[in-house]
Amino acid sequence: MAHRVVIALGGNALGNNLPEQMIATRSTAKAIVDLIEEGCEVVIAHGNGPQVGMIQNAMIELVRSDPEKYITVPLSVCVAMSQGYIGYDLQNAMREEMLNRGIDVGVATVLTQVEVDPDDPAFEHPTKPIGAFMTKEEAMKLVEERNYTVIEDSGRGYRRVVASPKPVSIVEIGTIRSLVETNHVVIACGGGGIPVFKTEGNHLKGAAAVIDKDYAAERLAEEVDADTLIILTAVEHVAVGFNTPGQRELTDITVEEAKQYIRDGEFAPGSMLPKVEAAVRFAQSAPGRKSLITLLEKARDGINGLTGTVIHS
Amino acid sequence: MAHRVVIALGGNALGNNLPEQMIATRSTAKAIVDLIEEGCEVVIAHGNGPQVGMIQNAMIELVRSDPEKYITVPLSVCVAMSQGYIGYDLQNAMREEMLNRGIDVGVATVLTQVEVDPDDPAFEHPTKPIGAFMTKEEAMKLVEERNYTVIEDSGRGYRRVVASPKPVSIVEIGTIRSLVETNHVVIACGGGGIPVFKTEGNHLKGAAAVIDKDYAAERLAEEVDADTLIILTAVEHVAVGFNTPGQRELTDITVEEAKQYIRDGEFAPGSMLPKVEAAVRFAQSAPGRKSLITLLEKARDGINGLTGTVIHS
Repeated sequence: MAHRVVIALGGNALGNNLPEQMIATRSTAKAIVDLIEEGCEVVIAHGNGPQVGMIQNAMIELVRSDPEKYITVPLSVCVAMSQGYIGYDLQNAMREEMLNRGIDVGVATVLTQVEVDPDDPAFEHPTKPIGAFMTKEEAMKLVEERNYTVIEDSGRGYRRVVASPKPVSIVEIGTIRSLVETNHVVIACGGGGIPVFKTEGNHLKGAAAVIDKDYAAERLAEEVDADTLIILTAVEHVAVGFNTPGQRELTDITVEEAKQYIRDGEFAPGSMLPKVEAAVRFAQSAPGRKSLITLLEKARDGINGLTGTVIHS
Repeated sequence: MAHRVVIALGGNALGNNLPEQMIATRSTAKAIVDLIEEGCEVVIAHGNGPQVGMIQNAMIELVRSDPEKYITVPLSVCVAMSQGYIGYDLQNAMREEMLNRGIDVGVATVLTQVEVDPDDPAFEHPTKPIGAFMTKEEAMKLVEERNYTVIEDSGRGYRRVVASPKPVSIVEIGTIRSLVETNHVVIACGGGGIPVFKTEGNHLKGAAAVIDKDYAAERLAEEVDADTLIILTAVEHVAVGFNTPGQRELTDITVEEAKQYIRDGEFAPGSMLPKVEAAVRFAQSAPGRKSLITLLEKARDGINGLTGTVIHS
């Protein structure tokens, strides 16, 4: 049975630096091409934590090297760069793996902006630390001059924190749909997408924010009318009672069961919780949709119902 | 009459830094949307000189800040980042201008790789300086450890020089065609494209090179079967006898006339010469194809035959 799937790739699929990325994307491509061999149309979303951090640090060092010449590059621009940085390796790994298996499908990285709501409560309480540690002086300068929010991080220095608002809509969705419908694997919403909000007229303005890639992938899955959202991560199953003697791996649960586990505090914020929340939201968004959370290397078994945690309505 | 056009944008269309880019892309978008109003299907290629220089400098500063933690980012990866950096502003400016005029056409930035020939003679004689000035020690370290070619630049320090090989083929051409055929303005081959060469099997390897954006745009124009290559630049006409009392602006010349002017040394290498060479190559590539070189702001008049220099067979 053919599926249209959106895959959310976590950090383990990409590695933490450039040499790791070149190796990791090769195994990632194998797992995804397995799904294509099973008849899936595939759209790939991915995170960018270490990558956008590296790019932002580089831009900070550039300004340090010549403060007269360079200005601080906004976070949204760093996200745009990270889409190029990651997409380049990921699309090449996909291309090579498909050619090696004789699969005639294109692969494209689409620069993607994701609209967020300026009234999202996340902007009131920025919580996500990004980039390098700074001295107090450097941090206060950015607070004063650029209205940054910074935190003092357990004696190791100051870091910028940004908001992590929810995705509202995907600006380039028409492009992504056109490519899916013309036989492409599409890499989109890299790093959760470049966060923008609508201002006066038809203008889009970059937001100092980072969108969670699982939520962005969920939004993307709804908007391309996928039937399955696949969140590939570092564990084969979602577990309850995690790290207790009563730990139990979940294989097949309903949206209602998942919501009860969420209310019971079974999943760690910033880790399994956003994945399960995204999975629930997709599974309940329309009849016949379901979500699968499993180990990257087990994607094929997961789509065939042999492993992983399925959340359905 | 409808045209399918590929536009090559020069440095004046993008500015030299981020604030300039945000302003420049707005006027650039106006000029390009004028062509869409005239019925053109548009594919945009662009340069990235100052932008990829800035990114490479930032990556050098990052390594300087912590040589244990970071490695030098290859030039091909910097080009990939620059496609995100420039595409983000350019596609937004295009989107806004089209919406403002009620034009229902999508706009997409496609991460693009361009294949080069490892036996291209340009690799024997790297000539294009990129990135920041370095001390002799820093330069010699890169020569030793990474086999870089460096030059000592008129007492101001050392700079890396890279090859500028000719484009052979565009890896993502199928994607670009799909998008043109589904009502999109496509931004592709940014910075001349990410230079890659084929190695064993189906692998593509990044090349330490920068492809001239006029040659890349010409290749792109042939491969999307455009009828017109439009090179938008800082002058309204190509001139012969440039900066002499006998200076004469060209309005309409044949490929043979253009070739004679090239042989006569009328055009400056690295400036007007690559533009005229690209224009000639496209005009002679198939019957009915022509090239137009004119001022960015005069694009509409140019396509209507009212100004600019046309080169035809």
